[in-house]
Amino acid sequence: MLKDYLKSKRELVDSKIEFYLDRLEYPNVIAEGMRYSVLNGGKRLRPILLLMVLDLYKKDLELGIPSAVAIELIHSYSLVHDDLPALDNDDYRRGKLTTHKKFGEAEAILIGDALLTHSFSIVTDETERVAPEKVLKIISMISRYAGINGMIGGQMVDIESEKRKVSLETLEYIHTNKTGKLLKLPVEIGAIISDATKDEYTALEKYSECIGLAFQIKDDILDIEGDFEKIGKPVGSDLELEKTTYPSIFGLQKSKEILKEVVQTAKKSLEIFEKERVQMFLELADYIAFRES
Amino acid sequence: MLKDYLKSKRELVDSKIEFYLDRLEYPNVIAEGMRYSVLNGGKRLRPILLLMVLDLYKKDLELGIPSAVAIELIHSYSLVHDDLPALDNDDYRRGKLTTHKKFGEAEAILIGDALLTHSFSIVTDETERVAPEKVLKIISMISRYAGINGMIGGQMVDIESEKRKVSLETLEYIHTNKTGKLLKLPVEIGAIISDATKDEYTALEKYSECIGLAFQIKDDILDIEGDFEKIGKPVGSDLELEKTTYPSIFGLQKSKEILKEVVQTAKKSLEIFEKERVQMFLELADYIAFRES
Repeated sequence: MLKDYLKSKRELVDSKIEFYLDRLEYPNVIAEGMRYSVLNGGKRLRPILLLMVLDLYKKDLELGIPSAVAIELIHSYSLVHDDLPALDNDDYRRGKLTTHKKFGEAEAILIGDALLTHSFSIVTDETERVAPEKVLKIISMISRYAGINGMIGGQMVDIESEKRKVSLETLEYIHTNKTGKLLKLPVEIGAIISDATKDEYTALEKYSECIGLAFQIKDDILDIEGDFEKIGKPVGSDLELEKTTYPSIFGLQKSKEILKEVVQTAKKSLEIFEKERVQMFLELADYIAFRES
Repeated sequence: MLKDYLKSKRELVDSKIEFYLDRLEYPNVIAEGMRYSVLNGGKRLRPILLLMVLDLYKKDLELGIPSAVAIELIHSYSLVHDDLPALDNDDYRRGKLTTHKKFGEAEAILIGDALLTHSFSIVTDETERVAPEKVLKIISMISRYAGINGMIGGQMVDIESEKRKVSLETLEYIHTNKTGKLLKLPVEIGAIISDATKDEYTALEKYSECIGLAFQIKDDILDIEGDFEKIGKPVGSDLELEKTTYPSIFGLQKSKEILKEVVQTAKKSLEIFEKERVQMFLELADYIAFRES
């Protein structure tokens, strides 16, 4: 069952994150701040996606643990920097003070920098039994997907797009890059480590693109009709920021239809595999699209 | 002659930086901001150190160009973030507006993040004819020396140490990490690429540690008796910030003596090499210690 699967994988990921970060000691504010920013009860969706691909190929999860943790560290650093006063200026995340509120603004900038930098140390120093050529390919992919032509690019265009109407093309650029690239990344890394065939790689890539888009459309929908208690942020904040979203372009009803179609496409892209092998992927697609938070 | 050598190498490094960064296009503010922050007339001391080691071993400089550029990008990102209002709050650097003054604060945070992230792309995607195992070793070293146990750690302790007296031990931690690690890094990477023997590696490492320390002591001295026109920042700013420096602990005269000793040690560490092979290294040690800016 998906729920139990996610829980056991989340516990595994959390224990590995703790293991890697617990060694860091000095300067204390950076070490503490890194742990505080990452160990925050997150869903660990990105690292779990990587482990799911390894499970699909019955590979030893240890082969991908360092990459999985690195991606989560990068996800965390992006949240630390996004929350800063100069960007989204958020005081709380998941009911806890944001990193800059807890440790100070200069500290949060450096804590974010340290998380990003350390993610590369973890991949290079902790990955075992993976050919060096593959590890280099993984590092290349991480830096491209997290950089100007990936997450940072999406974040920048997202900021530029506040308080004005943008085209569907621009909205898709933001979705594809700001959140999409970091959801594709673990799936592709898992496929690299597992020696997926070209067709399998393409299928998994397509799946990850679809669930990334589904994730965003669902986020947009939750901002309109979600439950504050569950989503942990004020409902209607996109409207207030006059953000362009799927519902603002297509309307709520049509957005829900698009979401269903995207989930169907995600599932269909995996038909290349026997159904029982990808059961968790199929359930995860539904989970992402129909979650309440 | 050192001056001509540095000039030709600086031009080479600048042309390579332009070559790599000119391809970046979108989002424009990030691409432009990255170029603005790196192409600023810097001395390129760090990349040149790497190329000097390759020259010492008569290696093709192209083997180390991507790593050299990556280190300069990391140096630049650290300056972009250091200049932010939450940290040093500087409006000018080398007579030009700092990145956040030119592009905005949110933008500068993301531009710095993009420079750091992109540096890893350059090493993985542009390095040719270097064994993958060596490239991984280089990436590992970059991330460790630039991270919590290196540059970022030094920067954090430096911030914590403002407006209060710190011990010589803490001052040495700051020097070793904040600037020292990023000066050691290119020398060690050059030695790795060149297959230096263990003894040669140790000698070069020692040299780089000494010139890093000399660089800092000289900086402290310049802050007291430098020429504003030449150093490009107000003389006496350390005193104003009540910063602990070599002169504040040892006095100006003794600091100058220590500086001379450190330069002697730097030169002596290279006695393992024939003198004419390391002529530029010997001249560079003097240049760093007796520069006027």
